Amino acid sequence: MFNRIRDILIGPPLPTQQSAHEKLNKIRALAAFSPDALSSIAYANQEIYLGLVIAGAAGLSMAWPIGLVIVGLLMIVSLSYFQTLHGYPSGGGSYVVARSNLGTYPGLVAGAALLIDYILNVAVSVTAGVAAIASAFPALWTHKVMIALALLVVITLANLRGLREAGTVMSIPVYLFLGTYLLMIVYGLIRLAVEGPSAAVSAPAAVQPLTILLILHAFSTGCTALTGIESISNGVPSFRPPAAKNAGRTLIAMALLMGVLFLGSIGLTQFLGVVAGPQETILSALARRLLGSGLAYYVIQATTLLILAVAANTSFAGFPRVAAILAEDGFLPRQFNSLGDRLVFSNGILVLSVVSGILIVVFNGDTHALVPLFAIGAFLAFTLSQAGMVLHWWRERGRAWAVKAAINGVGALATASALLVVGISKFAQGAWITIIFIPLLVFIFLQIRVHYKKMAGELTLRGLPPSLKPAPPLRVVIPIFGVHRAMVDAVNFARSISNEVTAVYVELEPGAGDKMRATWEQWWPDVPMAVVPSPYRSIVGPLIKYLDETDEQRNDGRLSAVILPEFVPPHWWQNLLHNQTAWLLKAALLYRRSQRGYGRVIIDIPYHLKQG
Amino acid sequence: MFNRIRDILIGPPLPTQQSAHEKLNKIRALAAFSPDALSSIAYANQEIYLGLVIAGAAGLSMAWPIGLVIVGLLMIVSLSYFQTLHGYPSGGGSYVVARSNLGTYPGLVAGAALLIDYILNVAVSVTAGVAAIASAFPALWTHKVMIALALLVVITLANLRGLREAGTVMSIPVYLFLGTYLLMIVYGLIRLAVEGPSAAVSAPAAVQPLTILLILHAFSTGCTALTGIESISNGVPSFRPPAAKNAGRTLIAMALLMGVLFLGSIGLTQFLGVVAGPQETILSALARRLLGSGLAYYVIQATTLLILAVAANTSFAGFPRVAAILAEDGFLPRQFNSLGDRLVFSNGILVLSVVSGILIVVFNGDTHALVPLFAIGAFLAFTLSQAGMVLHWWRERGRAWAVKAAINGVGALATASALLVVGISKFAQGAWITIIFIPLLVFIFLQIRVHYKKMAGELTLRGLPPSLKPAPPLRVVIPIFGVHRAMVDAVNFARSISNEVTAVYVELEPGAGDKMRATWEQWWPDVPMAVVPSPYRSIVGPLIKYLDETDEQRNDGRLSAVILPEFVPPHWWQNLLHNQTAWLLKAALLYRRSQRGYGRVIIDIPYHLKQG
Repeated sequence: MFNRIRDILIGPPLPTQQSAHEKLNKIRALAAFSPDALSSIAYANQEIYLGLVIAGAAGLSMAWPIGLVIVGLLMIVSLSYFQTLHGYPSGGGSYVVARSNLGTYPGLVAGAALLIDYILNVAVSVTAGVAAIASAFPALWTHKVMIALALLVVITLANLRGLREAGTVMSIPVYLFLGTYLLMIVYGLIRLAVEGPSAAVSAPAAVQPLTILLILHAFSTGCTALTGIESISNGVPSFRPPAAKNAGRTLIAMALLMGVLFLGSIGLTQFLGVVAGPQETILSALARRLLGSGLAYYVIQATTLLILAVAANTSFAGFPRVAAILAEDGFLPRQFNSLGDRLVFSNGILVLSVVSGILIVVFNGDTHALVPLFAIGAFLAFTLSQAGMVLHWWRERGRAWAVKAAINGVGALATASALLVVGISKFAQGAWITIIFIPLLVFIFLQIRVHYKKMAGELTLRGLPPSLKPAPPLRVVIPIFGVHRAMVDAVNFARSISNEVTAVYVELEPGAGDKMRATWEQWWPDVPMAVVPSPYRSIVGPLIKYLDETDEQRNDGRLSAVILPEFVPPHWWQNLLHNQTAWLLKAALLYRRSQRGYGRVIIDIPYHLKQG
Repeated sequence: MFNRIRDILIGPPLPTQQSAHEKLNKIRALAAFSPDALSSIAYANQEIYLGLVIAGAAGLSMAWPIGLVIVGLLMIVSLSYFQTLHGYPSGGGSYVVARSNLGTYPGLVAGAALLIDYILNVAVSVTAGVAAIASAFPALWTHKVMIALALLVVITLANLRGLREAGTVMSIPVYLFLGTYLLMIVYGLIRLAVEGPSAAVSAPAAVQPLTILLILHAFSTGCTALTGIESISNGVPSFRPPAAKNAGRTLIAMALLMGVLFLGSIGLTQFLGVVAGPQETILSALARRLLGSGLAYYVIQATTLLILAVAANTSFAGFPRVAAILAEDGFLPRQFNSLGDRLVFSNGILVLSVVSGILIVVFNGDTHALVPLFAIGAFLAFTLSQAGMVLHWWRERGRAWAVKAAINGVGALATASALLVVGISKFAQGAWITIIFIPLLVFIFLQIRVHYKKMAGELTLRGLPPSLKPAPPLRVVIPIFGVHRAMVDAVNFARSISNEVTAVYVELEPGAGDKMRATWEQWWPDVPMAVVPSPYRSIVGPLIKYLDETDEQRNDGRLSAVILPEFVPPHWWQNLLHNQTAWLLKAALLYRRSQRGYGRVIIDIPYHLKQG
């Protein structure tokens, strides 16, 4: 039954051979790698607006200069990554670059920052998408958490299916977004030329003076515009040959498009004097100002939602891949590195979905509350990766290495400065959460690797002589819950493997033991039966105590085995009608260490009921 | 670790001997059994008010007549139960009375109605209590679901601990409630006498005309005032002797107190012209009107919350007890009939808590939305129980049996009429949910008993000759996940119990099988190894298929056993770092039926890691 539900939701399993990769041309590659970067204008604009509007009209007039600085930063970071993808044509994610150039610890810091960044990208993109559509339909505001979670479930299921059609289907929203936004910006520029600029007359009165600190705040959250810019550097192998060259051109195209969209929208907002109401995003207010409340406006809001959903989707490719690399290196549980039924890393997808879902609920679906957590991870990964590239060029000493190192050095410095600004100015609003979690994750990574290493050392057969010594003789204990047919099989089996069989009855009510003994001796007079009283009505505890005590008394090196007769009803749900004592007992026997440090053998004899 | 948390939250286990019962005197008994009935004025008044206020001031003037009719009904029902507790001095719950007099099906209907009634009593009492306190502190309104759930958790934990101190501690809120409310009513009557009656001048304008239907609506939800009146009839054995006589007197005292409180509060509300705002209960508005917004008002609201919490608590005694009786009769899973660590029916408590918690969330913590579901169960149980009593007296033909039967007959008719009114007038608002769930529950009860009966028939040893035939010879299969120390123990054990051992390797990646074979043959050249390809990367499926196929090929009557070497890390959380394939495999082997209809033996060999 579970299989059937799974088949409907995520499709039947796929064979391993199907995992060949399809190479992307530039048009499709742009669609595949750019949504994260392009869509970030939705929340970056919003953050700059919210950061400045508290200083009234004077504050809002700082949007354009801030936009220019961020675009300058964008160009520096893009150039840096342009170099990274030429230096690491086989995929230069921040973790790989930082680990191979700077060492394990910086690599792990970058890995932790990346994982957190991917999670926050999902939460921020989904909630920003919901804000876009709720700006068009204000009745949805009160349900934004539920809508965001529903969207998250859809994206998760699509990714568990394996988005093999990604290239084609995903291109549509990306080019739709580019087309509609570019058209709107061109139209807006014409309007601006005709009407002339106007001040934000309807801006609410300033509640704070316009200080440097306020501008830094707005700048630091506006820096989220840069998130996603690195994604192409991970994906060089997906490009058609010459891969690095094609990837580089795609990166440049993406950076230019981003610059145009970001500066265009922020410039129009400022010079047309656009101001947003409490239940509307600033991009929505801009679109409404330019296009009225007609069909064109709704198309813009819908494509905004779509591109943000696609952007969230990119994390679902990135997070599981980074988690799988970390798992392969022994820093995360191995389960992250096993391909699921549909040839995707299902465990990574599920963890990403659950954690970002929790974030959405905890932060009440509010993009503005999530953003301070977001930029830290991105800029930390940027800085480490760029710093790693500087060392890379220095070590390699190829052609023009000094120029290349200088470019990455400038990138590293610029992103490090931005990191500092974000970390300090947004510390109290939530950046502290990320700042705590990154070292915590690194600590966990290291603990996990210690565990795997110790375990491998303990389990290895290296140095042991081939062992052919037989197992010690066996004594068998059968816990009795009743005298029935399943018990017949159990006793017969016990006698076939051991010459020392004991039955044990845990007596929950005084006197029940004598009754049971009478019945037992009628059927198996030659199998001794012990009665263990249980004043606290627990079955597992007294049974284990009995085993421990008898093992210790004998101390003859015999192995002990416990035989559990279990009846299995024909339908799974009928198990709800039976005590799950057998499972509890098995778990206790398996995980509990006996004093002798030697595990007890657990033998299950199933008896399948035919009716019931 | 889990044990430690449990000890802190619910206390260490108690031995079975402590389960002796303490007998209650009338003062304590009134406190133990009356909260449910007394507290219902909180929501019954509120429902009558909400039902009438839509017809404006004219509507509100119908509150007093409706109150009089409900008190009349209260007297009839109390008299009926007075007789029940004399007829069934050992405890006359609706299920027992209906089943023993009317037969199994009516008994099960009464049982289902009771269970639903107990669940709704929790949801309604808790949300009404939160409404009382939120009337005093309006900031709490937006958090009412969370507060209600927190209150539910506290009550649940207290009950899992086992409320042995019930009598004393619980008496305080009950007598506090009685004292404060009676004082307030006396004070209100004096004020009314001095000031003279006033109309509800500030009542909102009527949005509906005052129709018979509207009055019936208000009456039917007001009938929730009667819920809880039956509780003493279940508890006769808890009274000091002469138990029936004492219980009867306590019942009469409770009914009189209820009548005074209900009529007093509803009369004062009407004749003082009290009207409630949108975020206030009508009882709170009455208290504010009489006492101002000083300390006395807050005391009234706090005692209202307390009595409602204690009322919710009575369900936590009743529900598990009825579930345990049904489980003993085979109509509910047996787990409901096993005493937990603290000598309480923990499973019943947990189920009640979870289901009522779900109701609170689904109905958004709104008492008004829950009430239409509530009265159905209570009145159905009343009717069946009273009808059962009529037959009881008729069969017994004791002294004055005709009079007794007539009294219960009137009770049955009155509650049946109320049931009809509630069912019809509140059908669309939620009564349909209860009307669907009662027969559904009865159906489930019957299915469960069929399952237990069939199973008992299949498992019995009756008629079988004592069997001493040895188990058939054994073949052993060992799935290999790697060659390590745990495998050494497993192979040695396998060879000690069987002369036919095969190892099986599930090959997830092409070519891995050959590598594994080379290692395997180095260590165990005499144990044959099979390689099973798994194109879909599943381990469990191909392994089971291999077992099925080889079993079928051989078909020599041999029993097959699967040996699973398992390493157990020293700390429980380290299991998260390992694939749980062994558990999945065990579950699959246990629950899956082989074609031969004979279970496979599952043998676990734990290997305890020392470090890691």
